[in-house]
Amino acid sequence: MTFEVTILGCGAATPSGRHNPSAQMVNVHDKLFLVDCGEGTQMQMRKYRLRFQRVNHIFISHLHGDHFFGLPGLISTFSLLGRQSKLHIYGPPALKEIIDVTFQHSETYLEFALEFHPVSDKKKMLLMEDETLEVYSIPLKHRIPCTGFLFVEKQKPLKIKKEKISEYRLTPLQIIELKKGNDVMSAAGQPLLAAEMCMPREKARSYAYCSDTMYWEKLAADIFQVNLLYHEATFLTTEEERAKKTFHSTALQAAKLATIAETKQLLLGHFSSRYTHQHHFLDEALTAHANVLLADEGLTFQVG
Amino acid sequence: MTFEVTILGCGAATPSGRHNPSAQMVNVHDKLFLVDCGEGTQMQMRKYRLRFQRVNHIFISHLHGDHFFGLPGLISTFSLLGRQSKLHIYGPPALKEIIDVTFQHSETYLEFALEFHPVSDKKKMLLMEDETLEVYSIPLKHRIPCTGFLFVEKQKPLKIKKEKISEYRLTPLQIIELKKGNDVMSAAGQPLLAAEMCMPREKARSYAYCSDTMYWEKLAADIFQVNLLYHEATFLTTEEERAKKTFHSTALQAAKLATIAETKQLLLGHFSSRYTHQHHFLDEALTAHANVLLADEGLTFQVG
Repeated sequence: MTFEVTILGCGAATPSGRHNPSAQMVNVHDKLFLVDCGEGTQMQMRKYRLRFQRVNHIFISHLHGDHFFGLPGLISTFSLLGRQSKLHIYGPPALKEIIDVTFQHSETYLEFALEFHPVSDKKKMLLMEDETLEVYSIPLKHRIPCTGFLFVEKQKPLKIKKEKISEYRLTPLQIIELKKGNDVMSAAGQPLLAAEMCMPREKARSYAYCSDTMYWEKLAADIFQVNLLYHEATFLTTEEERAKKTFHSTALQAAKLATIAETKQLLLGHFSSRYTHQHHFLDEALTAHANVLLADEGLTFQVG
Repeated sequence: MTFEVTILGCGAATPSGRHNPSAQMVNVHDKLFLVDCGEGTQMQMRKYRLRFQRVNHIFISHLHGDHFFGLPGLISTFSLLGRQSKLHIYGPPALKEIIDVTFQHSETYLEFALEFHPVSDKKKMLLMEDETLEVYSIPLKHRIPCTGFLFVEKQKPLKIKKEKISEYRLTPLQIIELKKGNDVMSAAGQPLLAAEMCMPREKARSYAYCSDTMYWEKLAADIFQVNLLYHEATFLTTEEERAKKTFHSTALQAAKLATIAETKQLLLGHFSSRYTHQHHFLDEALTAHANVLLADEGLTFQVG
């Protein structure tokens, strides 16, 4: 089943011409979730041919403009294109006021329902779930209230090995229990072990988006053992003081955090426009984590 | 002296991938004026290498998103790039609230002064002037309060023909009067005519931006005999009913208005995304006006 992340923008606040401001599309089992929405995100979605009317949930990390200035335009476009399905937006409480004031004065009346879910930055919270997925907010440490987002695939029921059904004449009730992972007894009083009757369990995958934040070890607990971690790396170590002052991270700090959190893969992004050669971010992070990737507009990364 | 218009966006509200939302840069004697600022305008300015820190005056026609959603991002970028010079913004009164709410919640503190000038849509008004230029607002007729903008070069002083200075031994005082267009007397009592002593007067040029508006003949008086008129042409005549209903114009209506206003050149823009072949706009308008141009992103049009 699909679980992937497409980068729409991975630049920091000051535009560079090289990168777009923050935005990415998370695809979980062909459901699309937009994470952050910097200016121009709708153009990026069009450029990369993402079917953005299929987005029903948008997550905004914080209210610095490079993470949400594309949102009013995207909502307007949804409306102009005749959207009818409900749109859920998760973000800092004040985002609702910004959206309301903007649309009030432009006399824009949406034809679809827009449900706003205020997100607190105080503790990890379950924001939404459906049959296959849970999405959590994760507190980050930035200049203004800011959260990351954690996408966790739900544990799927076990699959019975087909040949076992006839071999042991499994009843529907026995199958239901075995799929839950419970051992059962056969009619003859023989123990039937779930581990033998079923295929090995597929591991549930997880993806964490952490931008913007300073280096903060406490974060590791909230994203422990995620398969893929997008962690901001605004600066290199040469600018470590500046990173601290502006509540951002260096590539090395991102890698250290990923190692403490036992993250399988680390994806770096939110690059400052002062750097022209992005491979320095990779070189630096590889000294502290074995599996590092560099974000870039249009790239899609598999979670697994 | 330079007087030209560079198109940054000339599409209507629904994005097409073909055009950007409304924005254009007016260059009058190397001073840059931004007119409207749809989403992505700062990226367009960068793409066309316009030195946008030189923009000190921004004019917003109305509060439909495709005309101003790029403004918060542009202001933020000005600030991030260390701008210090004052920025003047002219637009509907409610624009100030939108800007204030947005920056309040993002805790953005600008290092430069931002002066907001509320614009009424009730009558033509002088918004600003300097030694070479006057800018007026012009009432338009749209679904929400909306104004166009008129850029008028000031009448320049006459230039004395150099050879006349020695020939008639003109004194500084005589030169000052002649430059104003006044005739003077020589020391010998001979009348010296400004028309003979001076080069022919260069005609002051003018540019009018009219988007968005329905066909409205009263507008002609406010833009009478402008050299270049940008008039919206969202639709073709086949969609005339729709144009009326949405308070937009057809290409033919734009041309009729330009003819009534005795406009030298007509520049069409604000094209609906439903049309793929823009030459239909040209064909239609040419039936009612002799000199028609089609806007497109990146094109620069001379005013004269």
